[in-house]
Amino acid sequence: MFDLDEYMEKLRTRIDTAIDERMPPADARPAVLHRAMRYAVLGGGKRLRPVLCLAAAEAAGGCREDALDAAVAVELLHAYTLIHDDLPCMDDDALRRGKPTCHVEFGEANAVLAGDALQALSFELAARAPAGPRYPAGQVVIELARAAGSLGIVGGQAEDISFAGRKADTDTVQFIHRRKTAELFRAAARMGAISADAAPSVLEALTIYAVELGLAFQIADDLIDAESGKPDPVSCLTAYGVPRAREESRRHTANAVAALEALPGEAGMPLAALAKSIQAREA
Amino acid sequence: MFDLDEYMEKLRTRIDTAIDERMPPADARPAVLHRAMRYAVLGGGKRLRPVLCLAAAEAAGGCREDALDAAVAVELLHAYTLIHDDLPCMDDDALRRGKPTCHVEFGEANAVLAGDALQALSFELAARAPAGPRYPAGQVVIELARAAGSLGIVGGQAEDISFAGRKADTDTVQFIHRRKTAELFRAAARMGAISADAAPSVLEALTIYAVELGLAFQIADDLIDAESGKPDPVSCLTAYGVPRAREESRRHTANAVAALEALPGEAGMPLAALAKSIQAREA
Repeated sequence: MFDLDEYMEKLRTRIDTAIDERMPPADARPAVLHRAMRYAVLGGGKRLRPVLCLAAAEAAGGCREDALDAAVAVELLHAYTLIHDDLPCMDDDALRRGKPTCHVEFGEANAVLAGDALQALSFELAARAPAGPRYPAGQVVIELARAAGSLGIVGGQAEDISFAGRKADTDTVQFIHRRKTAELFRAAARMGAISADAAPSVLEALTIYAVELGLAFQIADDLIDAESGKPDPVSCLTAYGVPRAREESRRHTANAVAALEALPGEAGMPLAALAKSIQAREA
Repeated sequence: MFDLDEYMEKLRTRIDTAIDERMPPADARPAVLHRAMRYAVLGGGKRLRPVLCLAAAEAAGGCREDALDAAVAVELLHAYTLIHDDLPCMDDDALRRGKPTCHVEFGEANAVLAGDALQALSFELAARAPAGPRYPAGQVVIELARAAGSLGIVGGQAEDISFAGRKADTDTVQFIHRRKTAELFRAAARMGAISADAAPSVLEALTIYAVELGLAFQIADDLIDAESGKPDPVSCLTAYGVPRAREESRRHTANAVAALEALPGEAGMPLAALAKSIQAREA
């Protein structure tokens, strides 16, 4: 029988090794920068986005190893955005995953630079990831760049901080969730699928799956934050209230699972199990 | 007769149009972010790096238009590094090219984000730039990523700020100049040459040319800064003194011009004129 925890753990272990191998050594000059980069990336995290990338490659009939560069690229991109989000001029967070944030540990300038360098390394790895023969050579990089840029994550963050504690309306919350979370989920799945030379219908199904998963994940995260007593004014809870947020989350999860029906045979099964487990987190 | 000013002006005009076409419109949401990006990029600048990229493509027998995406990518990367270098936690500069710096005009958070988004857009454009059939598909992106990353520009900046007003030794000044300046000159020339499918001997000659040009340019810049009364402690002048700095600058320019002899016919002539004009700036 399929065991999601075992599957995720196997992918996570492979991803952690791959990240370590692809980062410059901690003693390469300038050592403080390389230590800051490693601190931010190797200090834990669920590795959900790179897992999604590898699982999408497998669901598209490809090989896990071929998608590893793409998976690490996605995780480094995510790690850089967290460093910059935590900066004093942004969310000004002192703790992340129970540890001091990068700027608290290494100073603000080194934190900005560690984020900048992680973004560059992320694109270097995306450029090394093979695109299947069906796709243009630069497609893996283009997917990542769009998710990362001013119409993706950075645009979502800029809109988010512009509210500075004010309550945002439903439209704005959706604008921000789509960009800050769903776009990188989308890119992760597409980069994996493209490296596996996915058929167009499979790429389309995985794209819908990933966007819906990202939206469900973000609502689940907002619900968990609210329960733990740190509600965000720019959150679906302030915009919708808890009952509608739960309903939206279930709807996105159901859409994600339904999209997988376009995949052949049992190919979508691990991804369906992943979506249901994210839904279960908030129950 | 060849007129360098006319040649440079023609390339600069083409580059400015190409940049404008490739940036999201100023009113795209979030507008403050897109205005900050445009402010930082379109507010002047010599466009030396993208000119080098186009001129290298032409010197390698290629077509200017094929190298435009690569050229714009290089300029956006350069613009992002200037925004982040100017931040309060870095060099804390209030003016750039006679105008308020990006964080003074748009706030610190938007400046960090505008830089981040420009880096992502830079890689998107690099991924659209064609690599000649001699080269791996991702090579243009890889050249840019290496120049940009922790072993390139960001590494140079991290080393630079670690001195925080203390005097640096010759070895350290060279480490920093190589990374903060010469690496992006190198990438600019190589990206242009690769898009033109340069023969290996031509790529090698252009690489040497660009590194030597970058080193000469940085020394010339340090000499000009010193004359205008804002000497930098991490500068070749503090490390070498003015007479040796002038001598080093001449040596690098001579090396740059000599490297062009490997190019066929008159192909290297515009680049040789460019190197001599940079040398002449400090005379």
